[in-house]
Amino acid sequence: MSELDEREEVLEELSEEEDSFAYEALRDSRIEELTELLEQKKMKPLQKLLEETEEFEVAAFLTELPEQQMAMVFRMLSKEQAAAVFAELDSQEQEYIINSITDTELGGILDELYLDDTVDMMEELPANVVKRVMRIATPQTRALINQYLRYPENSAGSIMTAEYIDLKKYMNVRESFARIRRIGADKETVYTCFVTSADRKLEGIVTVRDLIMADEDAVIADIMDDHVIFCTTTDDQEDVSGMFSDYDLLAIPVVDRENRLVGIVTVDDVMDVMEQEATEDMEIMAAITPSDRPYMKTGVFEIWKNRIPWLLLLMVSATFTGMILTSFEDALAVQVVLTAFIPMLMDTGGNSGSQASVTVIRSLSLGDVEFSDLGRVIWKEIRVSVLCGATLAAATFGKIMLVDYLIMGNEKVTVLVAAVVCLTMFLTVVCAKVVGCTLPMLADKLKLDPAVMASPFITTIVDAISLLIYFTIAKTLLHF
Amino acid sequence: MSELDEREEVLEELSEEEDSFAYEALRDSRIEELTELLEQKKMKPLQKLLEETEEFEVAAFLTELPEQQMAMVFRMLSKEQAAAVFAELDSQEQEYIINSITDTELGGILDELYLDDTVDMMEELPANVVKRVMRIATPQTRALINQYLRYPENSAGSIMTAEYIDLKKYMNVRESFARIRRIGADKETVYTCFVTSADRKLEGIVTVRDLIMADEDAVIADIMDDHVIFCTTTDDQEDVSGMFSDYDLLAIPVVDRENRLVGIVTVDDVMDVMEQEATEDMEIMAAITPSDRPYMKTGVFEIWKNRIPWLLLLMVSATFTGMILTSFEDALAVQVVLTAFIPMLMDTGGNSGSQASVTVIRSLSLGDVEFSDLGRVIWKEIRVSVLCGATLAAATFGKIMLVDYLIMGNEKVTVLVAAVVCLTMFLTVVCAKVVGCTLPMLADKLKLDPAVMASPFITTIVDAISLLIYFTIAKTLLHF
Repeated sequence: MSELDEREEVLEELSEEEDSFAYEALRDSRIEELTELLEQKKMKPLQKLLEETEEFEVAAFLTELPEQQMAMVFRMLSKEQAAAVFAELDSQEQEYIINSITDTELGGILDELYLDDTVDMMEELPANVVKRVMRIATPQTRALINQYLRYPENSAGSIMTAEYIDLKKYMNVRESFARIRRIGADKETVYTCFVTSADRKLEGIVTVRDLIMADEDAVIADIMDDHVIFCTTTDDQEDVSGMFSDYDLLAIPVVDRENRLVGIVTVDDVMDVMEQEATEDMEIMAAITPSDRPYMKTGVFEIWKNRIPWLLLLMVSATFTGMILTSFEDALAVQVVLTAFIPMLMDTGGNSGSQASVTVIRSLSLGDVEFSDLGRVIWKEIRVSVLCGATLAAATFGKIMLVDYLIMGNEKVTVLVAAVVCLTMFLTVVCAKVVGCTLPMLADKLKLDPAVMASPFITTIVDAISLLIYFTIAKTLLHF
Repeated sequence: MSELDEREEVLEELSEEEDSFAYEALRDSRIEELTELLEQKKMKPLQKLLEETEEFEVAAFLTELPEQQMAMVFRMLSKEQAAAVFAELDSQEQEYIINSITDTELGGILDELYLDDTVDMMEELPANVVKRVMRIATPQTRALINQYLRYPENSAGSIMTAEYIDLKKYMNVRESFARIRRIGADKETVYTCFVTSADRKLEGIVTVRDLIMADEDAVIADIMDDHVIFCTTTDDQEDVSGMFSDYDLLAIPVVDRENRLVGIVTVDDVMDVMEQEATEDMEIMAAITPSDRPYMKTGVFEIWKNRIPWLLLLMVSATFTGMILTSFEDALAVQVVLTAFIPMLMDTGGNSGSQASVTVIRSLSLGDVEFSDLGRVIWKEIRVSVLCGATLAAATFGKIMLVDYLIMGNEKVTVLVAAVVCLTMFLTVVCAKVVGCTLPMLADKLKLDPAVMASPFITTIVDAISLLIYFTIAKTLLHF
């Protein structure tokens, strides 16, 4: 059955059921087909079908196989496809494959791999495997790997690649196309070309679109764009990914401090960065030390190591809240009725604060807010918190009077007690929102990650604040 | 000063200070230059400099101007640049500009705008402005706008655009390049071309890279890839953005249920989707109704509306925790010492649960985990929670005996009390982690957004659980 027929069939089936994802069905059926051929040991048709399959799908297929079969199927791939599939695998699988292929095969794959994928791999592999890879790599690749491994983590240098197309100002369009045809086969992208001087300084960029639209005899100097959007090797990868979405770029040149072109970052790498940065932010917001591995591949002990320091730290902070409670122990013994409202006050305060802090943290990381906006942010949160606080206080008052007083007939819950609770609610929400929006901005100013100031920390701080407010008001109004 | 000199100067300055972002300095100086020219009313040089400035930077410059000046400067731009800048502006600014230009000018911009940007704009503008735009648009554009506006929110149809290059199977490479040159100028991308049959069915794709590398006389049918990665108009935009990062694509064809090509999604739109989806997830995790607007442009009343329903809902849930406390009021009155540990137990439980839930929510949205993994996830979390619980319990025991008993000399804190607290700690952490990992997966199975099951809900549930465990153990061990 041809690809086209298959696609039409899948689409037809889908038109009957809603809410399904056409391409996924096609992908799964392809992987099933591959598995079947392998089980029936039909190696020739398997090899042919593998050739026609996308690298990501081949990688997904390999991952599901037992290790020995994985290595066997991997060796059936052509050198180019093997390298592309290899780049899609996890470090554990990469390690297994490296250990089960010959030096010649490994050399072939290293030739074909893009430098950024090689560097990613080297960062994860155990030392003895790294040694073998280094021994087999060409001296030139080895020097580049060493250079790239020295760039700081999460910098543009650490995600860039060396496979780009460079042109000269004096070339014309015909010559440029000839050069692209000659050296383009193993470049990560051919669509953005970089114009450099004799001493490798970046002079401009020209896109293939410009080249196609221009006259064959036009000279690069005339059609190139010299207003280049660039980054340096030490720029933060998050800033670089922001530039891609601001300017709608496909590739960005990376220069050193002397404006010499040392590499490029491509849009597919940046998408990985965006995903990774969002995951990291969410993990930090939930008080987890971020990890690069997917959850299902992380060991129990490693997960424990990423979580326990924060839990301990927050537990110690929470004992201060406990100390506040202890210091009002006598008051509580007299007015036991006050205890019942503590969880509600603390939770609502924590939630109000989290809302403000997460909003501000995300705005900071998207560049919508910066430290100079602090005053405006606080003023905005004060107004929002007055609205929220008043609504919540009113709802609480209604609920207490209706449910606790009238329906449940709890005599200890007087109007005065209700007033104490509502006033506390109002003030807690206002404090929580102000604390919640201020702390992330201060953290950012101090060059800490603002995501640290999310729910867990805000909650711990707001818990203490809400109790202090509660007992102060209670003492004043209820005279004990 | 030339662009190149300027760039080198900025880089040189930067090599002295660390931790700064070279391109930002260049961008800010460009915007300052524009502002200066405008203030000095040097209109000719301003116009020239605007021409050389990136659209994103022109938009940033316009946004900072008072409305009247903004409209004046906007009218200085060429038709092409005006459209590109227009697409970068917020809906409020777009509305103001539409209201201050003539029908002819507006018609020119509509001609140049990509359809996806037009549709985005139409979704945000007030009805009277939409009417005017529809009146001015060509009948063909009007029909397309109407068709696109009908696709469900967050579907591939809602983010696709109609400006793509279509080729035929029987064309050769030379003819294909001629076609790209002829119609490419206003296509969103030229790098991926779509091969369609006479009845608009999608038969394959061919990239410009393939075209460059191929012989001039090669026929498209021979070089095109018929294993097409595609999506349908109703596919979720999050699934589509997942395909881009899996397969490293620049554009993806969107087909209807009859496999007819109706549009394409490009990588720059997908980056916006990724950013937007991550922001939405974080907002939902913090119990906020997601909003499309940036924080600083959202009104106080709207922020209140996005936050208050969740606060009310969670407050009501928290009253159950209060009811549990009330039902143990008598016990608390006898053993007041127990009160001091409540915040610590509740907070630690909440934090433990949040860690598990956020990890699982993110894994679900990245496709690393699915419902069928539920058993393995729970088993993993049980082991992690036993480790975490034991560590926390040991730390608590040490802290209570050392600080409360020995140093503070609090006689009420006996070894038995410490045992009650530690046992509760251990069981709470285990329950919290299991609840935290299970609820998001159940929500996903029920086609709810798993992000709802993050910190706030988990905390509320775990609070109640931890109190129940606490008092049950206390009653048993302390016999009251």
